[in-house]
Amino acid sequence: MSSRQGHQSTFMGWVGLDKSSIGKMKWQSFEPKPWEDTDVDIRVTHCGICGSDLHTLRSGWGPTMYPCVVGHEIVGIAVQVGSKVDHIKIGDRVGVGAQADSCQNRTVKCSSCARGHENQCFNIGRCDTYNGVFLNGGKSYGGYAEYNRTPGHFVVRIPEGLESAHAAPMLCAGITTYAPLKNNGCGPGKRVGIIGIGGLGHFGILWAKALGADRVVGISRKESKRFDVLQLGADAYIATDDEVSWAHDYAGSLDLIICTVSSPKMPLRDYMGLLDINGLLVQVGAPEDALPTLWAFDFILKSKSLSGSCIGPPKQIEEMLQLAAEKGVKPWVEERPLSDANHAIIDMEKGLARYRYILVNEQHV
Amino acid sequence: MSSRQGHQSTFMGWVGLDKSSIGKMKWQSFEPKPWEDTDVDIRVTHCGICGSDLHTLRSGWGPTMYPCVVGHEIVGIAVQVGSKVDHIKIGDRVGVGAQADSCQNRTVKCSSCARGHENQCFNIGRCDTYNGVFLNGGKSYGGYAEYNRTPGHFVVRIPEGLESAHAAPMLCAGITTYAPLKNNGCGPGKRVGIIGIGGLGHFGILWAKALGADRVVGISRKESKRFDVLQLGADAYIATDDEVSWAHDYAGSLDLIICTVSSPKMPLRDYMGLLDINGLLVQVGAPEDALPTLWAFDFILKSKSLSGSCIGPPKQIEEMLQLAAEKGVKPWVEERPLSDANHAIIDMEKGLARYRYILVNEQHV
Repeated sequence: MSSRQGHQSTFMGWVGLDKSSIGKMKWQSFEPKPWEDTDVDIRVTHCGICGSDLHTLRSGWGPTMYPCVVGHEIVGIAVQVGSKVDHIKIGDRVGVGAQADSCQNRTVKCSSCARGHENQCFNIGRCDTYNGVFLNGGKSYGGYAEYNRTPGHFVVRIPEGLESAHAAPMLCAGITTYAPLKNNGCGPGKRVGIIGIGGLGHFGILWAKALGADRVVGISRKESKRFDVLQLGADAYIATDDEVSWAHDYAGSLDLIICTVSSPKMPLRDYMGLLDINGLLVQVGAPEDALPTLWAFDFILKSKSLSGSCIGPPKQIEEMLQLAAEKGVKPWVEERPLSDANHAIIDMEKGLARYRYILVNEQHV
Repeated sequence: MSSRQGHQSTFMGWVGLDKSSIGKMKWQSFEPKPWEDTDVDIRVTHCGICGSDLHTLRSGWGPTMYPCVVGHEIVGIAVQVGSKVDHIKIGDRVGVGAQADSCQNRTVKCSSCARGHENQCFNIGRCDTYNGVFLNGGKSYGGYAEYNRTPGHFVVRIPEGLESAHAAPMLCAGITTYAPLKNNGCGPGKRVGIIGIGGLGHFGILWAKALGADRVVGISRKESKRFDVLQLGADAYIATDDEVSWAHDYAGSLDLIICTVSSPKMPLRDYMGLLDINGLLVQVGAPEDALPTLWAFDFILKSKSLSGSCIGPPKQIEEMLQLAAEKGVKPWVEERPLSDANHAIIDMEKGLARYRYILVNEQHV
């Protein structure tokens, strides 16, 4: 399946077969969705390893529809472009994030899709990039593969000047942190905290600086990440395991917090305590268990808010990529050969990524 | 103490002496704050009975500083006006809500007070209407009393055309529900839910209608409140104890919810489920225990938010009273003689109020 042709009925990729498939994915063929003239086939060159890949491979967010090919930070070359796709041509460098389709206002009236908030569509037609089902019945398969087939509406062009290995993780980790910052006024006058310094959190710091926040504070458990966080551009760092009185010392010091932590054991009340009056904490990490206990007074006395955010629509992904190209935003990535995906995903699970592993198909670059 | 004179060093009122004082308040003298030329003395004619009075009398929100006189929905006649108070003159009909003072930007730089959000001031100088301490060392005492002394900045004039018994409960229950509705865009285009139909909740319905919401839905446990809720002006009612599949049937049907429930046992996840995409639930009831467990996905998938709100500043109280006078907003109240305060507060604790008891000093009206 290494030849450059579309309309194929099988692709090759790393297939998870059951919930013990982290580190045990099999290289084998799978059936992409039946081709439609709204689709694009992509020869995958790069695919980031996202925490969602782990949650899904182990059925952590609910039962996964095995066989499953994960990966939703996909960059590659368009090799087949449906006749109804206007904005992509064969040979373009393109990307796909975590969402592969939405209802697009086709079958039902959808205010989300109508106003360009496709990520907030929850009608029939919505489909994740993997472990989803398209309207035509085909399953969705992700980017740990030679090829990917995705409806063109969810395929974005990668701007010149942005390296593929940098663009790939922006398509999920990047937009997951960019959208809540942009949508909640991150910019001059705002003091912004980013909790959890991993793939998502390190992007949070980069975006908050690029968007011009007055002050950006990285927050994570270990003192050992201080140097990286300041190198990334943060103005300060809080190590919650090592600074005993952090919750008291920094109480009320932030206007906007993006919390990327996906462990349910996080000290969420203390995080809320870091907010000033009218402050907002946006949760983007998705623990497999319940959130820690909260009290009404955590919200009432100082009019604080807790919210959530989930990726972003194609238009906002394009806006983010453009900003990254203009401002020279460079995530910290480590390239790993696609052939070594099982080792790489085990290292990801161990928390070793600094801060994103990018699978690279060396035969395609 | 029934004579009309200010600068007095003792007032008479219903005094709670310990945490078992619900229904056992004693009619005795207490010492108001030492007089300052920024103060107003009010001959109390009306005082609403608020849930906060119960929480405070029993030390439910933390230890109360007994002796304590509760009541923060105070209406009466200004009988003594400090020389530095410009907006009140002797004889005016005035009111005091739940806040009696703030730092007012006097001793520290306070962005909340500077921009007229005194209710969000948390500096030294802030003082609740009862169970608080003023900057001059005096304790604050509420309105179950013959007189009340409060700094003039927190004394509002009651507009003509608004009955005192209607104005009184607006000063806490009213502003507690008006502020989060007004501040979060309640008006045309919004579908609004009010959860918990008591003193606060019944105001929520009145305000949501007065502010022009597209649709107002009352939500409470018992079918028995349906008639009242529709009479109050709601477009629909949900009885959560009696409609088994309510959480499913009405999922995603509201844009803004004000939750007045102060029991920690409420089904908060199901309430959040009533919100549509980008919806906001504002908690204004303050349970004495933790909130029910929430999950990150409750927030993330549809970008929902949970927030809180606490009363409102004097300017917004005046705006609310003006709206009430113009639109003829009439809360449902039951007048009880001040002399019978202990019986009335027991009835309040039993949940019998439909929907607010107003203590009336018949010698003062």
